[in-house]
Amino acid sequence: MLRALQLAASPGVPLGPNPRVGCVLLAPDGTIVGEGYHHGAGNPHAEIEALKVAGDLARGATAVVTLEPCNHTGRTGPCSEALIEAGVAKVVVAQRDANPIAEGGLDTLAAAGVEVGHGLMADEARALNPAFTFAHEHARPYVTWKFATTLDGRSAAADGTSRWVSSPAARRDTHLLRALCDTMLVGTNTVEVDDPQLTVRGPDDRPLAHQPLRVVMGERDLDPDRRVFDTAAETLHLRTRDPLEALTSLYREHGRHHVFFEGGPTLAAAFLSAGVVDEVVTYVAPMLLGSGTAAVGDLGIPTISDALRLEITDVTVVGEGTEANVRLKLQPAKGDG
Amino acid sequence: MLRALQLAASPGVPLGPNPRVGCVLLAPDGTIVGEGYHHGAGNPHAEIEALKVAGDLARGATAVVTLEPCNHTGRTGPCSEALIEAGVAKVVVAQRDANPIAEGGLDTLAAAGVEVGHGLMADEARALNPAFTFAHEHARPYVTWKFATTLDGRSAAADGTSRWVSSPAARRDTHLLRALCDTMLVGTNTVEVDDPQLTVRGPDDRPLAHQPLRVVMGERDLDPDRRVFDTAAETLHLRTRDPLEALTSLYREHGRHHVFFEGGPTLAAAFLSAGVVDEVVTYVAPMLLGSGTAAVGDLGIPTISDALRLEITDVTVVGEGTEANVRLKLQPAKGDG
Repeated sequence: MLRALQLAASPGVPLGPNPRVGCVLLAPDGTIVGEGYHHGAGNPHAEIEALKVAGDLARGATAVVTLEPCNHTGRTGPCSEALIEAGVAKVVVAQRDANPIAEGGLDTLAAAGVEVGHGLMADEARALNPAFTFAHEHARPYVTWKFATTLDGRSAAADGTSRWVSSPAARRDTHLLRALCDTMLVGTNTVEVDDPQLTVRGPDDRPLAHQPLRVVMGERDLDPDRRVFDTAAETLHLRTRDPLEALTSLYREHGRHHVFFEGGPTLAAAFLSAGVVDEVVTYVAPMLLGSGTAAVGDLGIPTISDALRLEITDVTVVGEGTEANVRLKLQPAKGDG
Repeated sequence: MLRALQLAASPGVPLGPNPRVGCVLLAPDGTIVGEGYHHGAGNPHAEIEALKVAGDLARGATAVVTLEPCNHTGRTGPCSEALIEAGVAKVVVAQRDANPIAEGGLDTLAAAGVEVGHGLMADEARALNPAFTFAHEHARPYVTWKFATTLDGRSAAADGTSRWVSSPAARRDTHLLRALCDTMLVGTNTVEVDDPQLTVRGPDDRPLAHQPLRVVMGERDLDPDRRVFDTAAETLHLRTRDPLEALTSLYREHGRHHVFFEGGPTLAAAFLSAGVVDEVVTYVAPMLLGSGTAAVGDLGIPTISDALRLEITDVTVVGEGTEANVRLKLQPAKGDG
């Protein structure tokens, strides 16, 4: 199983929407007769790759897979059927498939007389695909909320100017984090006021070839000339102000697992109040404004004991000298919110 | 000189109001015939200690001192006279005395026919006594401004409650920093609203034997029953709202070199606007309030390009788990403000 996990974590595998999966086929004497891993959406699944390598040696073999073989026909056929057809005798999986439309692979295998088992190194397998696992278990994408703030909690000055609170180094770092998600989300107000392009750009400031889906949520009509509607990537306008409604739609109708949310103070407050912020990334810029827009809007919290408490998971200084910003990663404190 | 610097930095020497000083006496053949360091206010100066050790061997010796020998009679007599009387042939100092009332030692020595030199390892000697050096050079104390803030820049909730924004670990850390200063300063408003005792407490939460001076600034009369007026330490009420006036008085009339300033948003804004904040220490608590008192009051900054820019000098996570706060130390960016 360790080998299968290593295969799944092979470098260069693009993340999302498909999970990272590894598969090892063992002959009855324990010899490895086939290996494979999933290279990303549109490519064969790990099991199919391994079966191809093994050929006739798959008959009577044991398949060790990091994720329960799929049971549905998507862009590829169901892996459960392929394993049965190849004559595999036993299938051991780490993580049960969390995706309700693909699950049931082990049941299909067992019904066909294949010996099945699961649970070995399941935590490690879940950690391979945290957003995939989260999204299927919660029926909505994992939400990373990113905001930039001054030391005194301001996201813009009194006249509305906000370019730039965060340093160039912090903005480059943001692009690295955006690239790990499959969706970028802002509100209509941000599009009207800041007109961001919402693309992932590389160190040379050019858009990367693979771009997350751009999503704008809110009821207002938007000027089609806004940069978010350019041809650099796909864009979706969700006509709702309800965070959970938007997230549910992104999961159910658009298969999204990880939203990088860069909303302004009001929309951020709505997400926080709805309890749908799973991770906070903030860049603290070493500057003071004393007035201007607060980074977070009203949360309806009257007193200190009701404060929304988070737990720090990472503190990193991004950039050097006068470009240095402090990046904090946090998660809602357990037992809170 | 290195040995003299090491002596000056001997552990256990209390800081302030006197500088840390070390002295080595060398015979003409280079042998060390005497050593000494200043143990703190009320004790003999480093030179006097070294002369006592050397006895008659001081005649014709070279005195290597980290700070220019004093030329005035304070609680002890002038060291320049003592060196002349002992027959020292040469005096080499690292740092010229920055204290205007004690300076002139080298001139006195030279006039008496003693060979003098200065400047060797001067930077290292200045670093031994940064607040002492700063205060004398600027005719006001060095100001460390400390504030606690939520992730979204709030120092209190909408109903005014602020106990506690910072974690117990951060508050213990604050007491360590307070103990390095000779003065603690707040405004009358903080005394009225928060009623702090303003003492330095140890890990057992009991006040330390040596307490900094407690200072309250502002024009209002205060209730003498406020905790800051208890018998735990000396307290001064400065009847002014002008930061520079208060600091000048603390230097000139009270011999203060390092102020630990814990003022609220309005007074902090006044200090920042007056350009008399030399160091910022902030404890960022991983919580969100969304409303309440901003940690910093209006600075009269209209637009982002006028933001008061700082440079990060240290980032430390204080405390663990849910008690973890992020402590940032910063200094005004060079060429700014």
